[in-house]
Parts: sequence; structure tokens; C-alpha cells
Amino acid sequence: MEKVGRYEFLAEPFHCDFAGRLFIGHLGNHMLNAADFHSTDRGFGMKYLQTINRSWVLSRLAIEMEDVPQQYDRFVVETWVESAMRYFTSRNFRVVGLDGHTFGYGRSIWAMIDTESRQPTDIFSIDDGAINQWIEKEKECPIAKGGRVKMPDEVVHVRSIETYYNDVDINGHINSVKYIEHLLDLWPVDWYRGHRFHRLEIAYVAEAHGGDRLDFYRAGTGSGAATDIEVRKNGGDAVCRARVEFK
Amino acid sequence: MEKVGRYEFLAEPFHCDFAGRLFIGHLGNHMLNAADFHSTDRGFGMKYLQTINRSWVLSRLAIEMEDVPQQYDRFVVETWVESAMRYFTSRNFRVVGLDGHTFGYGRSIWAMIDTESRQPTDIFSIDDGAINQWIEKEKECPIAKGGRVKMPDEVVHVRSIETYYNDVDINGHINSVKYIEHLLDLWPVDWYRGHRFHRLEIAYVAEAHGGDRLDFYRAGTGSGAATDIEVRKNGGDAVCRARVEFK
Repeated sequence: MEKVGRYEFLAEPFHCDFAGRLFIGHLGNHMLNAADFHSTDRGFGMKYLQTINRSWVLSRLAIEMEDVPQQYDRFVVETWVESAMRYFTSRNFRVVGLDGHTFGYGRSIWAMIDTESRQPTDIFSIDDGAINQWIEKEKECPIAKGGRVKMPDEVVHVRSIETYYNDVDINGHINSVKYIEHLLDLWPVDWYRGHRFHRLEIAYVAEAHGGDRLDFYRAGTGSGAATDIEVRKNGGDAVCRARVEFK
Repeated sequence: MEKVGRYEFLAEPFHCDFAGRLFIGHLGNHMLNAADFHSTDRGFGMKYLQTINRSWVLSRLAIEMEDVPQQYDRFVVETWVESAMRYFTSRNFRVVGLDGHTFGYGRSIWAMIDTESRQPTDIFSIDDGAINQWIEKEKECPIAKGGRVKMPDEVVHVRSIETYYNDVDINGHINSVKYIEHLLDLWPVDWYRGHRFHRLEIAYVAEAHGGDRLDFYRAGTGSGAATDIEVRKNGGDAVCRARVEFK
């Protein structure tokens, strides 16, 4: 089996925006699926981990696109493990058309937790460090690693939303992809007529649960090239921080 | 080509609820995909219709499940055209496991509109009534047709939500599946620990657009076997009416 996994997806018509462009949230979901298929095929997927009370938890995700698939496009998400340490592993993605044209790339950082204690556990304990066989250092992922988004003291409250049944994933937490959707929903539909998505970085800091209220705070005016946003729950601590860039 | 189309799907892990059950909204999306694949394969799919300024518009949908696929289950959505008239066609669905076990069924009614005038158009005008070749009257769909949900004069306002960029589909309207999610989100996460989804009927009465506020009104106490809900936009007219049943 190769180190790089390749998984084909379809830009389903109802997963595309008013202009026929695949929503970035659905693209993110395809990346998470590709990650799970790749790790399942190699013996350390979520379904197996559930049987030993372990789970992968997404810690950071960056998606940078020159272009996105259009409705009915078939495309491939390539994914590979760039590095693994005891408590974190980094996994990259390339989104490529069937004609070989690169749409964009992704970078992600994952931790493994004990699903009972919720504490980080040793990734190398799975099958005697099996993940080390799959590290691919040569394949290029020419986008910046996610930096640390540091929020200023002065932030602007821009929206609060409630979370419900459909927001909660199999781990009992608010689904990682829902944050991507909520973040990109901070810009009005008309904004997307004149701008296109370029890059999103998101750092998942803490877990939120169904019923939590999510409060969105923006750094500064949001009029620069990049907009920094912090999401807090129930008026309290941060659950994630993100940077969004359009072109 | 057969009259009944069969399309295989995967219950993706991030499309499942906290108990590992495929969300009904995602199941509905798979039914809409199956409908589009079936009609595309037979010459009257949405992508072709876009080229002649026509589009299918979902008018009614009923989903009734004895059981739902669990995470990582592969399952098949069968779909066929039960009947066609000048302005409406009815299309059925059966959701079946790879082992042949039936999860449930769906029924839907579709109109075809002119995408410029937004008026209904003659379905038989497409390729000289080609849809008539594909009518399958014998295959069983043993669930009730959707009835007319009639709201009483006294209704209870239960929630209002705003709509954003991610809610808007390729037709520029609020995505049909989003209503299913919003309706099922009216019950708290804990409700789903003790109850399972049985049936949803939804009649799409008018179109809503990104930026519209959706106001949800319930008939009566919602404590009976079935709960009737009307969704209105911006404090005004109804956009859809639905009946939801749990077991």
C-alpha cells in the first residue's frame, strides 16, 4: 500500500453554492473523510480506535484553494501523514481534478485522546508505532502552516448562534465542519458574488456541546486581507480561533 | 436501462448523530442525489435542464424509516418515477442495505419550472415526453402519501433562525435539506436519546432566499404522536408545512 491515499469525490449539486462552487465546509468534510479512509486502510482509523476507547481529534486545519470544484466535478483528495510525534501528527491534503489540475491544499494537526478520560494519549502506542511506516516527507504541500491567531484585547462581537441536534457529531461535540460553515456565514451572500475564498486556518481550542451558544468575535474591522475571528461558548472561554482570507 | 435506478452511498462518520445514526437531512440529500443521477442517466437531469433554462423543483417529500443506516454502513437508494403529469411528477425511493434489508422509503413530488419566469412548465415538453418511457407502476412503496398539513388558527411560535450563505443552493433558494435539519433541530439533543425518527412529511409552499428569517410555528402542544409545523419567512407567508413523527 502506498503512503499517499487517493479518494475520489463528487461535487454534489446540493453541496454547491449559488454560483455552483463546492462549499468549503463540504470540501473540509471530504478532507476529513479522506483522512479517515486513509487511516482505516492502514490500521489506525476511527472505527478501530472506537473499539479501544481512543479517537482522533482535529486540532488545527488550514485549507488554501486557488480554485474550487464546480457542481458535478469529480475530484480527488490525496492525503498523507507528513510527520508523527507522541501527541500530535500532521496530515496534509492535495485537492486535484481528474485532469491533474491542482485546486488547492490542506494541512491538519491531530491529537489522539482517550474517549473516557478525554486526555491525550500516545499515538505510538497504537500497534507498536505503526503510523511511523506511513510517514511521507517528500511530497510537497506548498501552503503555509497555520500560525497562531492571536486576538487583540479589543474585539467586536459579530454574531451569536445556538447549537442543536444536527450540530453534534459522533464524539458528542460540535462537528468541526460546522465551525467552518458558521465562520464563512459571517460574510453576506452578496460578498461571495465579488470575492472568492482563498484560505482558512482554524485552531480548535476546546470542545463545545449541543445546546452551547457560540459567540463570534472579530479582531479589528475585518476590512483587511485577512480576518481573525475567535469563537467563544456561552459568553466564556474560546473554543476556536480562525483566520479567513478572500481574493 | 432499467426503470429503477440504484445508487450506493456511505453513511459517512461526520454525517451521523451522537449515536452513530445517519442524520435524516443527509439521508434526504442522498435521495435528492439519487433522483438527479437517475434523471441525468435518462436524459432529464438538472445539469441538462440548466442548459435550457429549466429546473426541477421539489414540491413535497415524505421519508418514513423503520431504521436508519449506522456510521460506515454502505446502503443503496433505489429510485423510480411512479407517475408523470403535465405539471407534476411523483418519484419514490427505497433505502436498502447491501444485505437486502429495507431501512425505509420515500415519496416525492416535483414540478419543473422555467428558471427565468419562475413559472411551472410542461414536463412532457422535454424530449417529446421522454419521461413517460420510465414510469414504473408495479414497484411497491408501502408508505402513505403526504397529506395536506392544515394548520389550526392557534399556533405557537417556537423558534426563529436567520439564513446565510451556506443555506443557499444553486437555484438561489434556501436548500430543501436545510429545512429538514432545522425542523429536526426543534427537538433537543436529549430527546433523541429516548426517541427515534419515524416519519417526516414536508410540503414546500414558497421559496425563501439567503437573508430571510425563518419563523417556526407549531400546531398545539407537540406532545401527540405527530407534530405539525409551519415555517414562515420574515413574519409573513408560509414557505413550508411539515409533519414529524417519532417512535
